[in-house]
Amino acid sequence: MVGYSDTKEEHLVRLRRIEGQVRGLQRMIDDDTYCIDVLTQIASVTKALQKVGLGMLDEHVRHCVLEAAAQDGAEGDAKVHEAVEAVARLLRS
Amino acid sequence: MVGYSDTKEEHLVRLRRIEGQVRGLQRMIDDDTYCIDVLTQIASVTKALQKVGLGMLDEHVRHCVLEAAAQDGAEGDAKVHEAVEAVARLLRS
Amino acid sequence: MVGYSDTKEEHLVRLRRIEGQVRGLQRMIDDDTYCIDVLTQIASVTKALQKVGLGMLDEHVRHCVLEAAAQDGAEGDAKVHEAVEAVARLLRS
Amino acid sequence: MVGYSDTKEEHLVRLRRIEGQVRGLQRMIDDDTYCIDVLTQIASVTKALQKVGLGMLDEHVRHCVLEAAAQDGAEGDAKVHEAVEAVARLLRS
Repeated sequence: MVGYSDTKEEHLVRLRRIEGQVRGLQRMIDDDTYCIDVLTQIASVTKALQKVGLGMLDEHVRHCVLEAAAQDGAEGDAKVHEAVEAVARLLRS
Repeated sequence: MVGYSDTKEEHLVRLRRIEGQVRGLQRMIDDDTYCIDVLTQIASVTKALQKVGLGMLDEHVRHCVLEAAAQDGAEGDAKVHEAVEAVARLLRS
Repeated sequence: MVGYSDTKEEHLVRLRRIEGQVRGLQRMIDDDTYCIDVLTQIASVTKALQKVGLGMLDEHVRHCVLEAAAQDGAEGDAKVHEAVEAVARLLRS
Repeated sequence: MVGYSDTKEEHLVRLRRIEGQVRGLQRMIDDDTYCIDVLTQIASVTKALQKVGLGMLDEHVRHCVLEAAAQDGAEGDAKVHEAVEAVARLLRS
């Protein structure tokens, strides 16, 4: 069981769309699309990826972190630390 | 002719790798991989996308912006404005 | 009582240092410092601000979110949603 | 002479406002303001800083990079590389 069990299909749909967008980026470059239009599309794909990440973070805190904390304070503390580290990596990317 | 003509193949190689990473993310979710590991991989794909964007920006300024500026000051100004707007979109994504 | 009661002084020390860095940026511009060096310093101040934000997020989840969840599931859910929205704002900034 | 000579005062006005916002953050923490409201304000200050950075980048490319390129191709190339590195630092912050 993972935190995102309930929304697994939703995440997969989004990621398949993102995969299509990345293939679209390859076509844009193959077709010599103007650099700025490629950059705009890169920003858009990045935003879509971050959205998947935010959804996953929401479910992770809602399920994994809260459940760990309810059972064991130290384990909850470790989970909070781990989740904030993950946010830090998203912020730096 | 676009700014990235010389490095087209390099961009395509990177984007094919990113496409593979996005498919890898789908497999991770399919296999119920721990949320935090999925988030770490999302940060890594985002970073790879930003790297393609930075490479494209470099070539765009090097070729399109400098050439436009060499031929026509007003056109050069417009190109600089357009490029900085593209950077702003990357920063917000 | 707020989530960051225990580390209030630490946050204030960091923010006073950031205030000093912002004054330093003004001196750099007053002294006609090279643009790229100003940009490097802006990136550094931004990183310091994000670090305060991450520390605050850590304590918010550790205290406010976990306590709300322990007392009332619905209130816990609302707090998780609110915290993830705050992360989304940090990511977009 | 730096790229931002014409807009020096504008940058200083913005940075004085940002300094005021950072002092405001200290007051918020002193007054035990709710964590999420502090985080929202941190995102807002970060955005304001990035805006100064984008303005500075615009002028840097418009003046320093274009002038260097007009005088000497190799120097222009080095300036483009340096500017894109600065954008990379902003993106990672």
